[in-house]
Amino acid sequence: MHILLLSGGSGKKLWPLSNDIRSKQFIKLFKNEDGKYESMIQRIYRQITACYPDAKITVATSRSQASTVLNQLEDKVGISVEPERKDTFPAIAMALEYLKDVESVPEDEPVIVCPVDLYMEDDFFALFEELTDIARHNRGIALLGTVPHEVQVDYGYIIPDTDSRISRVRSFKEKPDAMTAKRLIKDGALFNAGVFAFPMSYVLDLAHELIAFHDYDDLYSSYRGIKPISFDRAILEKADNIYVLRSTAFLNDLGTWNAIAEVTGERIIGDGYLSDSCRNSNVINDLDIPILAVGLDDIVISASQQGILVSNKEESVDISPYVSHISQEVMFAEKSWGELKVLDIGDDSVTIKLVVKAGKHMSYHNHEHRDEVWVILNGNGRTIVDGMEQPVSGGDVITMEAGCRHTIIADSDLTVIEVQRGKDITTKDKKKYELE
Amino acid sequence: MHILLLSGGSGKKLWPLSNDIRSKQFIKLFKNEDGKYESMIQRIYRQITACYPDAKITVATSRSQASTVLNQLEDKVGISVEPERKDTFPAIAMALEYLKDVESVPEDEPVIVCPVDLYMEDDFFALFEELTDIARHNRGIALLGTVPHEVQVDYGYIIPDTDSRISRVRSFKEKPDAMTAKRLIKDGALFNAGVFAFPMSYVLDLAHELIAFHDYDDLYSSYRGIKPISFDRAILEKADNIYVLRSTAFLNDLGTWNAIAEVTGERIIGDGYLSDSCRNSNVINDLDIPILAVGLDDIVISASQQGILVSNKEESVDISPYVSHISQEVMFAEKSWGELKVLDIGDDSVTIKLVVKAGKHMSYHNHEHRDEVWVILNGNGRTIVDGMEQPVSGGDVITMEAGCRHTIIADSDLTVIEVQRGKDITTKDKKKYELE
Repeated sequence: MHILLLSGGSGKKLWPLSNDIRSKQFIKLFKNEDGKYESMIQRIYRQITACYPDAKITVATSRSQASTVLNQLEDKVGISVEPERKDTFPAIAMALEYLKDVESVPEDEPVIVCPVDLYMEDDFFALFEELTDIARHNRGIALLGTVPHEVQVDYGYIIPDTDSRISRVRSFKEKPDAMTAKRLIKDGALFNAGVFAFPMSYVLDLAHELIAFHDYDDLYSSYRGIKPISFDRAILEKADNIYVLRSTAFLNDLGTWNAIAEVTGERIIGDGYLSDSCRNSNVINDLDIPILAVGLDDIVISASQQGILVSNKEESVDISPYVSHISQEVMFAEKSWGELKVLDIGDDSVTIKLVVKAGKHMSYHNHEHRDEVWVILNGNGRTIVDGMEQPVSGGDVITMEAGCRHTIIADSDLTVIEVQRGKDITTKDKKKYELE
Repeated sequence: MHILLLSGGSGKKLWPLSNDIRSKQFIKLFKNEDGKYESMIQRIYRQITACYPDAKITVATSRSQASTVLNQLEDKVGISVEPERKDTFPAIAMALEYLKDVESVPEDEPVIVCPVDLYMEDDFFALFEELTDIARHNRGIALLGTVPHEVQVDYGYIIPDTDSRISRVRSFKEKPDAMTAKRLIKDGALFNAGVFAFPMSYVLDLAHELIAFHDYDDLYSSYRGIKPISFDRAILEKADNIYVLRSTAFLNDLGTWNAIAEVTGERIIGDGYLSDSCRNSNVINDLDIPILAVGLDDIVISASQQGILVSNKEESVDISPYVSHISQEVMFAEKSWGELKVLDIGDDSVTIKLVVKAGKHMSYHNHEHRDEVWVILNGNGRTIVDGMEQPVSGGDVITMEAGCRHTIIADSDLTVIEVQRGKDITTKDKKKYELE
């Protein structure tokens, strides 16, 4: 089975635990059976592979998220990277071309597309097999619809022809107003879970009608010129060979702190203390600084290097307008090689803590406008500075002047304090090189 | 005029902006006329010296607070340091011996004792002169009493003989219950502002009756054996030559976040944003991390490297029982030479940001169990490492192995990242040396 996980979205809604790099799906909020916290993408990957050990999973994502996907799923998945954001249809078309041309998947194979931020119980994924069968059998698109549990104005609705378990789809309605949503539900409409299966060729043929391209390389290089369009708009609302498989699973898009607090069922994640007088309040703390909550009612507190949110739960549903008042400089990030956290921003200096995972290494790069110092806290590895390789371990100090090419290679997990010094320090001041 | 400022108190009540080193009086919360934030000790020093430019001010304080006093008032005051905490009477006796033996103040000079955390309007201090006159004239103790503005169970009460502006004191009542407080107020009792004047010899004679000592050095070296006792218990409740000067000033001990929020009149101090839907809520943020408050009612948020407090205002009055659940490891401190902030605590490592003020230097010291690295961010100065002096400026890196003696001297303000590496890093692992 080929599964395409769509990983998009921006970071405002679950600020400050999300930022411009770490979207909702990458926040480790959900305790698995081993008691470890996992993110939505790690959870859904685990659920899918538990159900289908042989599934081939590809993540379609943006340039800015690719490092985080690699960090969280390592090299267990394929990654199709959009050169820039163009909404779901071009992203899916691109990923299908990637499967066909790069991974050599036969065109008549069915593919399932699934949003990465789908929070479902394990048994939901058992439906995927049936879904591909419906798509293959009907040579069209098969969607998963869930029975509405309440009126939702933020969801998409599927209106089936019949109320049988598998039905043709009559029409779609995206984010209806409450009145329309109520009527739709009364008439038997289903929530669109965003999961759909189809034979690759079916969507690729439609893609060739909408976008002028020959193959993967061609599509990749001409991507910037494509008009953004959603899969729903481009295909679902126009194609006529569309079926829906009905599920009674509870659909929750976990787009708010409130929804997340309900689902995790934990009052405190991270370092926090709630007084007995607190009611219906939650602390989600990614900082090393403890949070003390006293006498709070219906309040969510969420904190990271990025910021500290204290909101009543009702208003926490949409904090985006406020977040825009706050600097969005990225203060933490997961990279393909490990992770980083900004400890201090000073006048013409930035101090960062890095963890480079065993066996990984940074790109070989330099900066035009800043000097850097690495102080190795612990671990073993090697640095290459202007072509000179040397072993490093705890206590070693490496100084790098602006212009000098450098990388660090971790033999065991390496923890490093990096001090950057220069005018106008920015992540853009970085040039990558091949290792000589 | 000789003024003795008592600086004591611990850090729990205004946690997290106070900690074991930085008590309430050192938090910079009050905007002065220049728009700069000052602490209570800086404010009262400014108010007293504005009123009495020639006043000789001595701060009686504990060992743990001495550096912070020096940092905030520099060398403009004398400092009498208690070898350990013994409540107010021994502290005052010690400070008087310091004035007499070290500063050579004649024994018949009057002294005014004043708590450092007294938050009053400027004109209040004009009463100090009259107070010393009353003490001198009556050869006894003269107290400042303020007319109660409300029932207070946390204050001390003075019961005067008469309702005239200056009266003999009949008795005292410390922290009465509400019923008693009401009756006292009805009978004309006054709040004890904690300010009192006396001829030095008057209290020193009483001190010699209670404590066996000859002079300053003797008192200092035998201090650990002294029984703790408050000045109120030791003297006020027993002496009979006590007068009170009545003031109508408003007495506010600013011991709670609520009281501080009212007095400062600022909704936000530091990096914060309150949504329009917030009511009667305050943000006091000492972190570089922004705070966003949405839809809060009657909530105070206060944050530092030490912790983040989110409390309803009513319960914020006593958070001490909760604070005891939280690690009190000191995460920021003001030192005689500047200040420090802990950026990161790792496995066997601590990373700190230091600012050494121009013209100041650390003690020459070493550590038995940790190596250190200094990365100079900016400024100019000199380091001495095992006797070798060298100039340093932005970008320089100095490595110091365990055992090696070192100091840094700032010619201009020096900002430094210090990385400490070793097992069980503690502030106690430090040995000071004279510079060769």
